[in-house]
Amino acid sequence: MKILEEVTNPLYVFEQLESEVRSYCRSFPTVFSRSSGYKVWDRKGKEYIDFFAGAGSLNYGHNNPKIKQKLIEYLMKDGITHSLDMATEAKEELLVGFRDVILKPRKLNYKVMFPGPTGTNSVESALKLARKVTGREIVMSFTNAFHGMTVGSLSVTGNKFKRRGAGMSLTNTVSMPFDGYLGNQVNTAEYIERFLEDNGSGVSLPAAIILETVQGEGGINAASFEWLKEIESICRRWEILLIVDDVQVGCGRTGPFFSFEPAGIQPDIICLSKSIGGYGIPLALTLIKPEHDVWEPGEHNGTFRGHNLAFVAGREALQYWETDQFSKQIQQKGEKVNRFLRQLVERYPEMRGEVRGRGLIQGIALGVDGLAEKICAAAFDKGLIMETSGPSSEVIKLLPPLIIDNEGLEKGLQIIAASFEQCRRDLPVN
Amino acid sequence: MKILEEVTNPLYVFEQLESEVRSYCRSFPTVFSRSSGYKVWDRKGKEYIDFFAGAGSLNYGHNNPKIKQKLIEYLMKDGITHSLDMATEAKEELLVGFRDVILKPRKLNYKVMFPGPTGTNSVESALKLARKVTGREIVMSFTNAFHGMTVGSLSVTGNKFKRRGAGMSLTNTVSMPFDGYLGNQVNTAEYIERFLEDNGSGVSLPAAIILETVQGEGGINAASFEWLKEIESICRRWEILLIVDDVQVGCGRTGPFFSFEPAGIQPDIICLSKSIGGYGIPLALTLIKPEHDVWEPGEHNGTFRGHNLAFVAGREALQYWETDQFSKQIQQKGEKVNRFLRQLVERYPEMRGEVRGRGLIQGIALGVDGLAEKICAAAFDKGLIMETSGPSSEVIKLLPPLIIDNEGLEKGLQIIAASFEQCRRDLPVN
Amino acid sequence: MKILEEVTNPLYVFEQLESEVRSYCRSFPTVFSRSSGYKVWDRKGKEYIDFFAGAGSLNYGHNNPKIKQKLIEYLMKDGITHSLDMATEAKEELLVGFRDVILKPRKLNYKVMFPGPTGTNSVESALKLARKVTGREIVMSFTNAFHGMTVGSLSVTGNKFKRRGAGMSLTNTVSMPFDGYLGNQVNTAEYIERFLEDNGSGVSLPAAIILETVQGEGGINAASFEWLKEIESICRRWEILLIVDDVQVGCGRTGPFFSFEPAGIQPDIICLSKSIGGYGIPLALTLIKPEHDVWEPGEHNGTFRGHNLAFVAGREALQYWETDQFSKQIQQKGEKVNRFLRQLVERYPEMRGEVRGRGLIQGIALGVDGLAEKICAAAFDKGLIMETSGPSSEVIKLLPPLIIDNEGLEKGLQIIAASFEQCRRDLPVN
Amino acid sequence: MKILEEVTNPLYVFEQLESEVRSYCRSFPTVFSRSSGYKVWDRKGKEYIDFFAGAGSLNYGHNNPKIKQKLIEYLMKDGITHSLDMATEAKEELLVGFRDVILKPRKLNYKVMFPGPTGTNSVESALKLARKVTGREIVMSFTNAFHGMTVGSLSVTGNKFKRRGAGMSLTNTVSMPFDGYLGNQVNTAEYIERFLEDNGSGVSLPAAIILETVQGEGGINAASFEWLKEIESICRRWEILLIVDDVQVGCGRTGPFFSFEPAGIQPDIICLSKSIGGYGIPLALTLIKPEHDVWEPGEHNGTFRGHNLAFVAGREALQYWETDQFSKQIQQKGEKVNRFLRQLVERYPEMRGEVRGRGLIQGIALGVDGLAEKICAAAFDKGLIMETSGPSSEVIKLLPPLIIDNEGLEKGLQIIAASFEQCRRDLPVN
Repeated sequence: MKILEEVTNPLYVFEQLESEVRSYCRSFPTVFSRSSGYKVWDRKGKEYIDFFAGAGSLNYGHNNPKIKQKLIEYLMKDGITHSLDMATEAKEELLVGFRDVILKPRKLNYKVMFPGPTGTNSVESALKLARKVTGREIVMSFTNAFHGMTVGSLSVTGNKFKRRGAGMSLTNTVSMPFDGYLGNQVNTAEYIERFLEDNGSGVSLPAAIILETVQGEGGINAASFEWLKEIESICRRWEILLIVDDVQVGCGRTGPFFSFEPAGIQPDIICLSKSIGGYGIPLALTLIKPEHDVWEPGEHNGTFRGHNLAFVAGREALQYWETDQFSKQIQQKGEKVNRFLRQLVERYPEMRGEVRGRGLIQGIALGVDGLAEKICAAAFDKGLIMETSGPSSEVIKLLPPLIIDNEGLEKGLQIIAASFEQCRRDLPVN
Repeated sequence: MKILEEVTNPLYVFEQLESEVRSYCRSFPTVFSRSSGYKVWDRKGKEYIDFFAGAGSLNYGHNNPKIKQKLIEYLMKDGITHSLDMATEAKEELLVGFRDVILKPRKLNYKVMFPGPTGTNSVESALKLARKVTGREIVMSFTNAFHGMTVGSLSVTGNKFKRRGAGMSLTNTVSMPFDGYLGNQVNTAEYIERFLEDNGSGVSLPAAIILETVQGEGGINAASFEWLKEIESICRRWEILLIVDDVQVGCGRTGPFFSFEPAGIQPDIICLSKSIGGYGIPLALTLIKPEHDVWEPGEHNGTFRGHNLAFVAGREALQYWETDQFSKQIQQKGEKVNRFLRQLVERYPEMRGEVRGRGLIQGIALGVDGLAEKICAAAFDKGLIMETSGPSSEVIKLLPPLIIDNEGLEKGLQIIAASFEQCRRDLPVN
Repeated sequence: MKILEEVTNPLYVFEQLESEVRSYCRSFPTVFSRSSGYKVWDRKGKEYIDFFAGAGSLNYGHNNPKIKQKLIEYLMKDGITHSLDMATEAKEELLVGFRDVILKPRKLNYKVMFPGPTGTNSVESALKLARKVTGREIVMSFTNAFHGMTVGSLSVTGNKFKRRGAGMSLTNTVSMPFDGYLGNQVNTAEYIERFLEDNGSGVSLPAAIILETVQGEGGINAASFEWLKEIESICRRWEILLIVDDVQVGCGRTGPFFSFEPAGIQPDIICLSKSIGGYGIPLALTLIKPEHDVWEPGEHNGTFRGHNLAFVAGREALQYWETDQFSKQIQQKGEKVNRFLRQLVERYPEMRGEVRGRGLIQGIALGVDGLAEKICAAAFDKGLIMETSGPSSEVIKLLPPLIIDNEGLEKGLQIIAASFEQCRRDLPVN
Repeated sequence: MKILEEVTNPLYVFEQLESEVRSYCRSFPTVFSRSSGYKVWDRKGKEYIDFFAGAGSLNYGHNNPKIKQKLIEYLMKDGITHSLDMATEAKEELLVGFRDVILKPRKLNYKVMFPGPTGTNSVESALKLARKVTGREIVMSFTNAFHGMTVGSLSVTGNKFKRRGAGMSLTNTVSMPFDGYLGNQVNTAEYIERFLEDNGSGVSLPAAIILETVQGEGGINAASFEWLKEIESICRRWEILLIVDDVQVGCGRTGPFFSFEPAGIQPDIICLSKSIGGYGIPLALTLIKPEHDVWEPGEHNGTFRGHNLAFVAGREALQYWETDQFSKQIQQKGEKVNRFLRQLVERYPEMRGEVRGRGLIQGIALGVDGLAEKICAAAFDKGLIMETSGPSSEVIKLLPPLIIDNEGLEKGLQIIAASFEQCRRDLPVN
């Protein structure tokens, strides 16, 4: 028998039993039960369109039927589930598939490391390796970067609130201004170069520069391809390793499989997670240029490096990349989103909006305090799951599954339009 | 068409495509394909008994049929798979089940945190929280501790090779001698107390003491219950938080659900992972005494906190703990293992063996360099998967699935006996 | 009996017995024996004009006769020489003199701390105190700053070679661009503000900002008074302590007693050393705004806090500040130096010189590699002691004793002119 | 005109103008004016016997007449006073004297570095160099060590109060138990060896071990010569540099010039300060085995490395070491002190005293809280200056000038005896 509160408050169990650290269940206060493609249903049967996509983990949609089929077959035949980093058939198929579908056609050559099944595991392994390869300790990261919550990754993350959570000094990193951070006139790559070439700058030669090509958590800040090229050339000039954290914006989020492809750069290390597991189950890869693969056996390890269900799902998801169709569709959807957002910004000049992003990670930074959160809350009421991002939660962030169809995209955008209109009424009149 | 080497060398693909960091596939050089209970089969159909159990992740056996059933049902009905830390029905069921089956009967009261799906995520969250609660920076850990490979966890890990992998100073920790580290005459708890009470010791009052009750990776060093009680009482006296890392030896590995139950202590924070996911799929929990649950929402986060397949599997696995039968069986199997190991040590005095461990994590430390690795290699040939541990890989470590039956256990032990006999012949004569 | 080499090589003893770390004796390879005012004589009787002044420690000239008189009297009467931080008459007189001659007329109110007798002791005490007052760990310093060679001071020093000397990570500091570092168009104070106000900048709120108003070692970079005011106002806005390291450019070096007086700012903490001891003997003071004087007794200490000879000499030196005559003379001499340097730069455009500095710390940054060192070497040959500074030793630095007369100044400048002319001949023709 | 309080409160000026950090002037609340040999007089003419000797800086007594004579002559002839690290005649004489009087007769071979004129400068330079030589970061130090107050030295200092003063984490050091720290049964050298040889100890191979042979500030803990030899042999075995900080107990304090001579060890680096300047004026030396003198020129520097008055005084003081007479006298005085202290301990069993120390650094640790401070206060009243030491100020510390005559010594000891007797009356009756 349930007590009264348990009946009337849908989140009663979570409030009673789960730690105060829980967060998204506060923004989206219902209990979810089912999902398919770009749709999610809560316990009461209410349907939501998902413009969050597991923060980029559900690029192929919820419970993608083809992948599901593979998972069920694998489970039914008692395929190996857990294997630490032993060799399994499922892992072999993922490795071969990744080589044949992703690396070869792009003329890329990387060794694949399984660093543990989360983005932060991958980032930690990348930082370790860069320090080992170069014998240097400092890593350069960027304002508003987000790379994870374990101490190593946190030390290259910009957010003050999250950094403070470490409860101790985060060392051996230096935070540099991201592209555009000092306004459009200042080329921050030149600024970085200045610090590197000056013997008195107080900044040591770093082991690596780590970056996201589009900063998702940091407010959808997209680096220009030109700037990315300059950063790569700085890295080459100073023999610094370039690490691209493609955890959120890789796997097609901006259009191409790797977000950096259009910039024509070749990072030394690439971090992948989220959608690489295909089905929203934990997996991460660290890609390493062969000449930097100087690990000793077991120098980095972890219990869930061998999560074979993720190998199976991740392998199946690679089917989307056999041709360039998928990539083109993302591009087209991205353009549609972009047009829509620009119109919205024009329609509500009092919200001082700025459209940001690329492909299917786009959003609007709003110049009114607290407004982005209100719009997301209104959208949730109307059946759309959408998150804010940015250092002050000032950006609404559209991150639909890449497989979303036209109808779903249209419907989601209409809810956003309606939410803007609703929140406009509450705006203070200047 | 495969090239020749690909045909003759079963690990060809892994050697070509995977990073040099891979390790267990070197000790167990075959490609595994299927598994069930305590058995694993490789691609060629060779059968192995598993005395490794995913380093403690497969306490309920490979592909446990009841759990598998639940997973397939959940997949079939399109239950939510990925949910960040939103509320889902599967999560609710896990929370309620954990309260009702584990916490309540043990009169324990902890808030549950989902810190990301690996042990190291849990440890990192525990360290952060302890620092936040106390406002102190130092954490005390122990010789030969293993807590994970991300920078925070690595800083409380003892192994020099793994620590060096960080490529930078690991700070804000102090390594103290574990129970028995200085021989049987010295009570290391007194030693710790001496450092704490002396204003000139050079050791600051720590935020927390973190420990494993049985150090798995560190060489199967089991702390006495007496010593654990003393450590808890030191923590109380100095208002230090006690963190028990039960990632490897929790979930019944030593007999009771929590390894520390027989010591009668109540840690402030408990880290769980590995078998908590039930099926060898990634999940981790951090248990927090309610008075210490001072997190801000989102102060620690991660993409795969909401891995619902693991919630489903983990919930089903709790069935094993509805009565105390399971615990008693583990105890009995542990005694059997212990008798066997003692006989072995007596039979081969020249190997200078020492039996270590508790419940179903036991082993023999061998006084002959390189011998443990040879025995494990011999056992693998004969169809047994078994790992070494300890700072110099000097310990053979028996970690069978807890659900192993008598036949399986017997068979595995016989292979060990045969491997000892085989390796004895190669021993240098003194 | 001396061996032959000892006779022919004047530095033989030093090369044999002193550590390789010795440096100035390499640039000025002779053995000095006597000095007076702005003149120094070596063992062979060769006379040198001193445009180095003990790196700013000999503002009142070598062996200033009035101060010497006081020192001899004090020695003769067996005045206390060493007193740790006990109260002595000599210390009392310094304290009262400093209050009456320096602080009161400037309407300044500071508590005086004796942190140990070197600049780096003072900086270390300032950093500790700022961290204690604010409860924060990070200190912000500037590109090309120089604050000392002990680990705390080194961590706020910009020079890479010197930082590397620590042999370990220097933590809890962040290096920001000094005034002018990014060219004349960029106001670096705005840049700092940007990092402080952005919650995602990766830079924590610092305990303090530490700066030199003119960076001596760093290349004679003079901050504008406008910029100093902005930095002070940033400090006020964010409750950051402002520490001015006036070790080299205080005590009248730029004209006023404190270098920051014309900027109209009031630092929270001021570091003084070098010429504060009056006679080139070790002394340092840390001046603290009364509201920040939260030290516990003995929380910072040192053996030579009570160097009474320095108290006596330092007290006597304050006589120079009884009126504003001294300050005005420095100003005038500075203007003369400035005119001279500008002419020099115009005369040798191929040297791409840039005049820098203020008062009697001025110099020329030269755009030709290695040229500054050559000019200083030529000048030494001609009887002038003058040092280079800057991250690549690219700046010639004029630092004559403040009491230098017109004849001495003129003579020194003529040697510089001749040295330029001589080095011009060796310049590569483009 | 003085205000009233200034007249009645002798410390009025200090309380008004000096920072709260001042400490010894609180234990010895008077204003000192004159001193000679082992005697000090305050402003009112009251005479004190000095059993503190500038914390070991006045081994040759206050205002030693022979040294004074040299200083005055040097001042009168305008000898160079301040010379950074240029070559001067005074420096040459000190170098030659140190070689001939100290090093050669002891068959020692060290390069001499002038690291800046305080003990902490010397320690900082030693730590830097050890890290450079070995390429390692960690330094091992001991419980209750005191090495100085700048961040580098503080990180190897044991005292919690002083460490906390850093206001930030002190990193790259590990604190090990000093000789006797765990009672007489435990050989702490074995303990250290255990940590070094175990690959899982959590303690990295250190660059250096730094120690005082007698810990002065830490409570007059004298290491046995046997233990010192073992530490040296550990250093040799593991290629760790041995740094002996002889700042307080060198220059004859325990009998021989270097405190470690009777142990027969040869440190790699030796830190000297305090009495090396002869007259209580700032000077410090770092002695380096030639093979470790790998400094780059200027890699460590400082303004007051060339304090020529200290060179002159320090050179003159070496006269005491021309024969072994001085050393023998110290020994005899030490024995006298020891007999006296033992009798005292026996006479007052209720004070639970323990005699500690060696040569002329001896004292009594008292088992009654606050008693040592009371005895020192009583002694001061009776005309004796004597300090407490130890982590809880539980030790009275006798540190008379080494040149004290029998009469002075006798008189001082009688005051101690009287102070004990006086304080006995206030003891609580158990």
